[in-house]
Amino acid sequence: MNSLLQVLEMVYNSTNTKFQGDLLMNEVIKLIKAHRSIRKYEDKPIDEKLISEIVEAAQWASTSSFVQAYTIIGVQEKEIKEQLSLLCGEQPYIAQCPLFLVFCADLHRLEKACEVQNTVMVGEYTESFIMSTVDAALAAQNAMLTAESLGLGGVYIGGIRNNPDKVSDLLKLPSYVYPVVGMCLGYPAQNPENKPRLPLQVVYKRDVYQNHEDMERIKEYDEQISTYYQSRTKGKRNDSWTQQMAEKMNKEIRPHMRGFLRSKGFLMK
Amino acid sequence: MNSLLQVLEMVYNSTNTKFQGDLLMNEVIKLIKAHRSIRKYEDKPIDEKLISEIVEAAQWASTSSFVQAYTIIGVQEKEIKEQLSLLCGEQPYIAQCPLFLVFCADLHRLEKACEVQNTVMVGEYTESFIMSTVDAALAAQNAMLTAESLGLGGVYIGGIRNNPDKVSDLLKLPSYVYPVVGMCLGYPAQNPENKPRLPLQVVYKRDVYQNHEDMERIKEYDEQISTYYQSRTKGKRNDSWTQQMAEKMNKEIRPHMRGFLRSKGFLMK
Repeated sequence: MNSLLQVLEMVYNSTNTKFQGDLLMNEVIKLIKAHRSIRKYEDKPIDEKLISEIVEAAQWASTSSFVQAYTIIGVQEKEIKEQLSLLCGEQPYIAQCPLFLVFCADLHRLEKACEVQNTVMVGEYTESFIMSTVDAALAAQNAMLTAESLGLGGVYIGGIRNNPDKVSDLLKLPSYVYPVVGMCLGYPAQNPENKPRLPLQVVYKRDVYQNHEDMERIKEYDEQISTYYQSRTKGKRNDSWTQQMAEKMNKEIRPHMRGFLRSKGFLMK
Repeated sequence: MNSLLQVLEMVYNSTNTKFQGDLLMNEVIKLIKAHRSIRKYEDKPIDEKLISEIVEAAQWASTSSFVQAYTIIGVQEKEIKEQLSLLCGEQPYIAQCPLFLVFCADLHRLEKACEVQNTVMVGEYTESFIMSTVDAALAAQNAMLTAESLGLGGVYIGGIRNNPDKVSDLLKLPSYVYPVVGMCLGYPAQNPENKPRLPLQVVYKRDVYQNHEDMERIKEYDEQISTYYQSRTKGKRNDSWTQQMAEKMNKEIRPHMRGFLRSKGFLMK
């Protein structure tokens, strides 16, 4: 019996860690590389146990000095999802997904913790804004991967920052709380391709930042992306990465954010 | 042979997804829940193939509108790690780890993309700062989990923001690039415990933000954390979570950040 178990363990280990070509592929890496944004969902609710599992996993992400400076709001109520769908720039999948998570940076709880200890929080510095924003993002990525590992799919919603004041009213966010990013989750009812990323050498630098070869590589990447769109749309679309970026970045985006954040107590100094 | 393969596949599937009590535990969730900050490393380099694997996995994280607005700097050179170790607040493990990653928010590349398309980037708004910061954080969390799945351990270094101007000079960061967070990686030479997180109900809210029961729960959590420290330090330390938070948050932290970021082009509007 012992040796049978050993054999089974060997089999398990050998299937769990596979060499694909030269690359080590374990279950985690496989999952990460299989990520696609899912915007269509089966009409099937997400079990409460799975939701708890996703939130708990989010909580195990690292947090700056143990501050845990984020709150996750799980929206399942139809009417709230529908309103959010409009507020986030008419993204219908927010209304359609069974669970919409809003990852908020949260210094409000820390303000209360200071009160308990008879002191006052200093939260108005840019640093506290960064700290809580990064905390929320790390938790969100753990949530996304956990959801995907449970057979769900999802998409991040930056549009939660389109109308942050109205979103804050709707979700009753107090001062020192702001919605960093949203996330639709549900059982996938589509199977989109994943877009090729920038060449590794463009994104990864050894020891110091150096980018003298980047533009050459980005030119090749532009062609790759152009071909990708052409083959997916039967020639109808062929814009490159730099074209997309130029179109997005040559105008102001969400110019209200600074004013909104300051109204919530963030970024005062 | 076919049926043997089927049996092996069944064995594999049954080991890969286990029910532990009521909870579904797959490899990804197990890994996420096993996260601890590792600050001591074996004297063993990280293979270049693994580094590529970690960076590639980081790149598969979601990115706002495909901007991929981050750069990862992998520091292996002894002298640079030693300088960073001092600049980040005398954290010796930065010098000791075989690989120190610096996750930078990067709009510089998007500025270049705009130039290629004969247009000019509008990058000075707070929104672009959030977008690139979140992009960098999502990539970082994929990198951390991938590293852990490959047997490595690590710790995030917020101290990279202690002296961001000097870090920027050292790493030759151009305008529109700033170091969001650092990450030490290496083969673990310690086995620390993981600190209990806030109660799920404090961090997770249904449909809207509501916190009227939070302080009661945080009081219980304070006792839990206090007991945790007492048992780990044989009674020498017994501070609670609110005590820790009050101590951290009742003074200004990194007040230079705003000025530094504005000098780099961020947060102008």
